[in-house]
Amino acid sequence: MVVVGGGFGGLQAVRSLRRAPVDVTLVDRRNFHLFQPLLYQVATGALSPAEIATPLRVVLKRQKNVRVVLGEVRDFDLDHRRLVLDALANGDDGLVIPYETLIVAGGSRYSYFGHDEWRPFALEIKSLESALAVRRRIFTAFEAAEIEQDRKRREAWLTFVVVGGGPTGVEMAGQIAELARDTLSRDFHSVDPRRARILLVEASERLLPAFSPRLSTRAAHTLQELGVTVLLDTSVVDLDEESVVSKGPGGRSTHVPTRTIVWAAGVVAGELSGALAAASGAALDRTGRVAVGPELTVEGHPEVIALGDMVSAHDTAGNEVPLPGLASTAMQQGRYAARSVRRRARGKSSEPFQFVDKGNLATIGRAHAVAEIKGIQTSGMLAWLIWLSVHIFYLIGLQNRLLVLTRWAFSFVTRGRGARLITGESAAPATAGTATVSGSESNS
Amino acid sequence: MVVVGGGFGGLQAVRSLRRAPVDVTLVDRRNFHLFQPLLYQVATGALSPAEIATPLRVVLKRQKNVRVVLGEVRDFDLDHRRLVLDALANGDDGLVIPYETLIVAGGSRYSYFGHDEWRPFALEIKSLESALAVRRRIFTAFEAAEIEQDRKRREAWLTFVVVGGGPTGVEMAGQIAELARDTLSRDFHSVDPRRARILLVEASERLLPAFSPRLSTRAAHTLQELGVTVLLDTSVVDLDEESVVSKGPGGRSTHVPTRTIVWAAGVVAGELSGALAAASGAALDRTGRVAVGPELTVEGHPEVIALGDMVSAHDTAGNEVPLPGLASTAMQQGRYAARSVRRRARGKSSEPFQFVDKGNLATIGRAHAVAEIKGIQTSGMLAWLIWLSVHIFYLIGLQNRLLVLTRWAFSFVTRGRGARLITGESAAPATAGTATVSGSESNS
Repeated sequence: MVVVGGGFGGLQAVRSLRRAPVDVTLVDRRNFHLFQPLLYQVATGALSPAEIATPLRVVLKRQKNVRVVLGEVRDFDLDHRRLVLDALANGDDGLVIPYETLIVAGGSRYSYFGHDEWRPFALEIKSLESALAVRRRIFTAFEAAEIEQDRKRREAWLTFVVVGGGPTGVEMAGQIAELARDTLSRDFHSVDPRRARILLVEASERLLPAFSPRLSTRAAHTLQELGVTVLLDTSVVDLDEESVVSKGPGGRSTHVPTRTIVWAAGVVAGELSGALAAASGAALDRTGRVAVGPELTVEGHPEVIALGDMVSAHDTAGNEVPLPGLASTAMQQGRYAARSVRRRARGKSSEPFQFVDKGNLATIGRAHAVAEIKGIQTSGMLAWLIWLSVHIFYLIGLQNRLLVLTRWAFSFVTRGRGARLITGESAAPATAGTATVSGSESNS
Repeated sequence: MVVVGGGFGGLQAVRSLRRAPVDVTLVDRRNFHLFQPLLYQVATGALSPAEIATPLRVVLKRQKNVRVVLGEVRDFDLDHRRLVLDALANGDDGLVIPYETLIVAGGSRYSYFGHDEWRPFALEIKSLESALAVRRRIFTAFEAAEIEQDRKRREAWLTFVVVGGGPTGVEMAGQIAELARDTLSRDFHSVDPRRARILLVEASERLLPAFSPRLSTRAAHTLQELGVTVLLDTSVVDLDEESVVSKGPGGRSTHVPTRTIVWAAGVVAGELSGALAAASGAALDRTGRVAVGPELTVEGHPEVIALGDMVSAHDTAGNEVPLPGLASTAMQQGRYAARSVRRRARGKSSEPFQFVDKGNLATIGRAHAVAEIKGIQTSGMLAWLIWLSVHIFYLIGLQNRLLVLTRWAFSFVTRGRGARLITGESAAPATAGTATVSGSESNS
């Protein structure tokens, strides 16, 4: 059988099949599992990429029934039960992999609401590369402000706009505010980073819509204390390299000069969803998610399971079952998919997928978070400790746990950020860094 | 005064001026100091970039007489005692910085012996970006071999050629061998990484020419035990994307199919050396280094000090004083330059620079190194412990020391490498990683 996608859902499916009498091929574009919930910390220099990414071959080292292939799905050939891949490592653009059962866990991406021309100016935090690009822009903005002579241009460099008030937007706004107020506060000569403006723009009437209104208000309040300007009922109507135009309550339009825009709005299904729908004839909803039945299978193809952010689940009556777009959801579905495969191998039919709500967590800043678990709402330090424990627990590998804890301990005590590097616009300029290094062939 | 370059020499000069009655502007292309002697460990996935790079503003946080400017020198205007910079952060291409004293520490780069067309195929390990590009190629090669059907092409993917038998070449060859034999040995299904061929090509008759012949022999022997084929008296005469042609002892020519070539030969001065020589009329030697006098000043410009890998030092009689291209040399010269500036501020003349040989260290593999300190030669475990202690000591910051020690401890025990990521060919493909992630907007 074949699993496409080494994210939370796909990887969980593979791991849950470790004692199953099947051979599994795991296909992913990347050679690592990315712990996406902490990606915003890479974007703000708090963590370094390798600390939240674990090579798939390391995770699956001891699981003998798995083969890992680096590749991108080019075609779902459902009739012949085979995938056609672009093998990324050697450039072989037609690697055919047959399957009996297929699990697709293609994840989500950001949509720009039909404004793909905004993409280059309003960076998303989705891959390690895009997180590093955001990191580069944020820290470059402070460097630019330091040498900028013109007051207006300097203010634009010191204005940061985060679009989208979901967990990622809230976390990014909080982190940028702490960067400006604490980490960088005394690092510059000509500018005072504490005077940076951080705007968080949310189209609906409250932040964190997955939480209760009380916690939404709490989050907004904490962000304001950190120095973030929270703009609710406000939509972005235009943006470019130098500004954002938004429309606030009452239709009032505002033009904000800024050089740094972070995009965290409009989650839609990843590309694989559309491809799978086209191949199977299954329906897509308005956020591009492919419809799956109560057993997470694609209509007409009981051998094809799809899960995670790319699907909209339906019950036996055909009604949509709304599920939160969380790692927890994907992991439960991954475990369920593996159980289905094992049951089928023993000739049993599978039971419908049952979602268990494990709760909701979002961090806002140093020692501040909001949590809603089994009906219990909490915020502040306690929620933050829960957030911290859960994230350390779900990180893969003892080494990364130790490294992340070390970085967090230092950040907590010193308010510093250990990974504040501005790294390459392009991957490898031939002589990049030449001016910066002495003792190149050094060995002492 | 102005210091150009935040490498070992430049940064040491700035730090040694912390109590001097001068205002210092430090100019660098990058916002961090890079600990170059461990860059090969980034290239082989043992360490993550931020662990060997410290932001200059963090290093100099408490030093109030320093201003840091991100910029690239466009012009040394020695007559008017001012620098013209391309300010990298805001794109201002004509930032003028006047100085009374100028210290230039521009470092070195690799030359391809007049074959710049080899550069794209034989990557150097010089900047963080180029180290990550090497990392990508090495780990992609194993992934490609795993899916390659053709035996000859598979063998080419599993052949690694390192050019240059200095410390970096020796370290890279040893690391790739350990990767293949230990770290990756059981990670693949179709190929056995232990069958990888690693060739180390050195034009002269021995490795590590800065060490005694006995230790050179020892290093070659250790590498061979690790599975590296050491080719001495052998020059690269041609190379391209798929092969290396070398000429060995007796003029025998060999054609080796390979997809991964690492370049670690031909260290020459960085670009700033030529620019400084052109501006001052000082001589350049055949490796592009600018001549400086016994006080490290450029002829005719006692206010301009140059140091580190970009200079060739001369004594009062005008004879060249050969100095090793080590971090230690640059740091001693940086301290000396700062002392000169302080003496001049008190109206005293400076004394000639005196080099103190601190010894030479090179690591070959796990628990193997060679060391030559004050005439004492040692190799093996003891040398490796010295190497380890010295490197941890010179790393900047307690946090990075702890992180590096943690990674090394895990690598030592598990023979794993925690940062084996294949990351982006370009910085931020808009939807990169889409296929790999579930639970994108996750917050639990």
